[in-house]
Amino acid sequence: MSEETETPDVVEEREEQAYALDRKTWAGILYALDVEDPELLESLTAPMHAADIADLLEQFNPYDRGRFIRLYSGDIHGDILSELDESLREEVIRFLDPDQLAEAVRTLESDDVVDLVEDMDDADAEAILGALEDSDRVAVQQALSFPEGSAGRLMQREVVWAPDHWTVGEAIDYMRNTEDLPDQFYHIVLVDPRMRPMANVTLGRLMASRREVKLADLAEESFRVIPVTQDEEDVAYAFNQYHLISAPVVDDDGRLIGVITIDDAMIVLDEEHEEDILLLAGVTESSLSEGVIETSKSRLPWLFINMCTAVLSSIVIAQFEDTIEAFVALAVLLPIVASMGGNAGTQTLTVSVRALATRDLTAANLMRVVRREATVGLMNGVAFAVCLGIVGMVWFGMPQLGLVIAAALIVNMLVAALAGTLVPVTLDRLGVDPALASGTFVTTMTDMMGFFAFLGLATVILL
Amino acid sequence: MSEETETPDVVEEREEQAYALDRKTWAGILYALDVEDPELLESLTAPMHAADIADLLEQFNPYDRGRFIRLYSGDIHGDILSELDESLREEVIRFLDPDQLAEAVRTLESDDVVDLVEDMDDADAEAILGALEDSDRVAVQQALSFPEGSAGRLMQREVVWAPDHWTVGEAIDYMRNTEDLPDQFYHIVLVDPRMRPMANVTLGRLMASRREVKLADLAEESFRVIPVTQDEEDVAYAFNQYHLISAPVVDDDGRLIGVITIDDAMIVLDEEHEEDILLLAGVTESSLSEGVIETSKSRLPWLFINMCTAVLSSIVIAQFEDTIEAFVALAVLLPIVASMGGNAGTQTLTVSVRALATRDLTAANLMRVVRREATVGLMNGVAFAVCLGIVGMVWFGMPQLGLVIAAALIVNMLVAALAGTLVPVTLDRLGVDPALASGTFVTTMTDMMGFFAFLGLATVILL
Repeated sequence: MSEETETPDVVEEREEQAYALDRKTWAGILYALDVEDPELLESLTAPMHAADIADLLEQFNPYDRGRFIRLYSGDIHGDILSELDESLREEVIRFLDPDQLAEAVRTLESDDVVDLVEDMDDADAEAILGALEDSDRVAVQQALSFPEGSAGRLMQREVVWAPDHWTVGEAIDYMRNTEDLPDQFYHIVLVDPRMRPMANVTLGRLMASRREVKLADLAEESFRVIPVTQDEEDVAYAFNQYHLISAPVVDDDGRLIGVITIDDAMIVLDEEHEEDILLLAGVTESSLSEGVIETSKSRLPWLFINMCTAVLSSIVIAQFEDTIEAFVALAVLLPIVASMGGNAGTQTLTVSVRALATRDLTAANLMRVVRREATVGLMNGVAFAVCLGIVGMVWFGMPQLGLVIAAALIVNMLVAALAGTLVPVTLDRLGVDPALASGTFVTTMTDMMGFFAFLGLATVILL
Repeated sequence: MSEETETPDVVEEREEQAYALDRKTWAGILYALDVEDPELLESLTAPMHAADIADLLEQFNPYDRGRFIRLYSGDIHGDILSELDESLREEVIRFLDPDQLAEAVRTLESDDVVDLVEDMDDADAEAILGALEDSDRVAVQQALSFPEGSAGRLMQREVVWAPDHWTVGEAIDYMRNTEDLPDQFYHIVLVDPRMRPMANVTLGRLMASRREVKLADLAEESFRVIPVTQDEEDVAYAFNQYHLISAPVVDDDGRLIGVITIDDAMIVLDEEHEEDILLLAGVTESSLSEGVIETSKSRLPWLFINMCTAVLSSIVIAQFEDTIEAFVALAVLLPIVASMGGNAGTQTLTVSVRALATRDLTAANLMRVVRREATVGLMNGVAFAVCLGIVGMVWFGMPQLGLVIAAALIVNMLVAALAGTLVPVTLDRLGVDPALASGTFVTTMTDMMGFFAFLGLATVILL
């Protein structure tokens, strides 16, 4: 075991396996804040990764966050800022004086600076851009000239490339003589004389080959070129689908202008998933650190739409007031019809939204999927119709009531299956994220159709 | 532009940017199946990535799938099998004769074979293991000896490592003289004399350094060791949180036994997300290729639980039959109370489940998050209480009815906030996936409490 590598950090990190801030460290840090002991704070936070310190800041209440930054302020470096949730960045940046901020951002790679400034207001962004060296600032401004959420925002501009006629020896000599190779790179991009990417060569194969071997003969099988304007969601999909590690980015003329690596794609994939899961529940904010007012506001629109659709369902019920007055049992059973339809609809909807995201549901198999979901809905509808028909019959002693709820349930489960597939597919065709608003549409349909079928049948059969 | 690199595949792949099977190709393939033209099929599928051919097989109906495999059967290679959805693998494997199967799996890396056989029944798994060469079979069997879903199943056993006292020159000479380096590797793992990993050196930094530089001086900052028994979910979290590209896997004594790379972690992350999003909706199957019977069966348990809880809510309503008989308007408004509470609860629940998954919600900030959600719930409750109070008053001309629905709504939104946070946290503490069953628990609470508050208040105030 040599001295250079076995630093305390490594030991500490190896011991910590759950990757969560343990209670002891948490308590220690709060104690350090209480007694205002910067050295204790330093010793507790030194082994922590920037991402964990960012998590710590996110979990603090605003008071503790302020105390932490004041006691720690010498060292809030760029990595912590770029790991921090967007909703907190501006708050933390306000604690830093201009010199500290400049120092912090100068350590960042240009794609991280882009990530940092793209959501800021102009004054804050200017302050950060002003702190950068000229060449870095130009790189960031060029990246910002691409549309938000495009490959251009995601890529690094530093690419290691070689003409496609080079040999292994030429590539190694070139790399050894180049001063400023990127910190992290995994491939050499082979380009033709017009700078168009032709293939990737992994560094591993390069190392394992003799000097006289042609780079072109080492080309990797899995090779994709990403257009700079491509949506980052499609970029993440390509990395996931084709197991890419890095992919060259090209401009409209097909010329190499940057590279995207799998770690960036993984972050996008994670964000897209988060967005889908939250949108399905009608949540647009994404952070626990968001304030009460913002959170409350961000959830209002969805609840408001839900209120309107719930009133629509009530209007359906109101048409049958006389029937309900005659048979109060109907009011008792109403929520069951709504609940079963809503649940079955949500199941189908979620499967469809996922299948659209993974491109497993396409025009080619849409009709087959709809038929499958309808059949499943009918089968489950019949199963629960039998159960609930018996419940209705036994509970209220009315065989016809059992018949009514059974028939309504079958209708509603079929509506749920159709709405759960066709609503997200339709939204997707219209260019709307299928996760958005699908939930309300589908449950509105199952509620209204369920109530109408149940109360309508009751009126015909029972009255 | 040189001949070797500009293959038809590359051109084809560059042109296809949407990453989805286009309609023309799809129609062409179906035509090839209809006229039974293996050459046309070959020419259409040749440019396709194995992952896309697997998608194609998934989107076919069983009849076309059979026709495709018969016409294509010479070439269903291992990559396609390992990309294929689990529910279809056994169906496709049954079309292959033992020689074809043996040929198919021999081309796979050992971790892909593990992925292939771990969900098979014993006879099929034996057939595949029997087709492997001895050394590969041993590797697969060793991997299978680790628990399912552990780092041991995920890792590759082929690691490039070096003693931590080596220089760049020694490492390069070693690699150039080693016959069977892995196809894809990005780091050299430095180990101490007891084979314990000390640091990672990226190949890029290695290439850029002079021969006499010590490897230890090039060690990467971000370095994590993964215990072989660690849950794959934690592995994926670590890669995502700490931006790892590859990480050494160690046995109980801390000795290097394998390596996990970011592409494996990305697949796990994707699967975990899929599981969460589906579980939240009460779906346990994950594939559109699953048959109708299996799908129907897999959705029944959740719907059954939902039926039972819906009946519980009905029982609450049944206690107030007299009140409803006196004021049928109550039956009309009931679904609104349930729907608003259910939606608010689902919003809070989803945020909590995500925050637990990303470790943003911990013991340290639980109380603060609960207070925040309760405050948001109360604020939104009051906002909608005013709206719906007015609706109730105007619609039915009864001021007291407006008051009742307003009060019930505030109670219900508060219940939704508390249940939406505390239910998933409790499940998580009990070691249950918080996404599982949270939905039913939360909506049952909001339904029952909502109906009880609404009808109870109505009984007190209106009767």
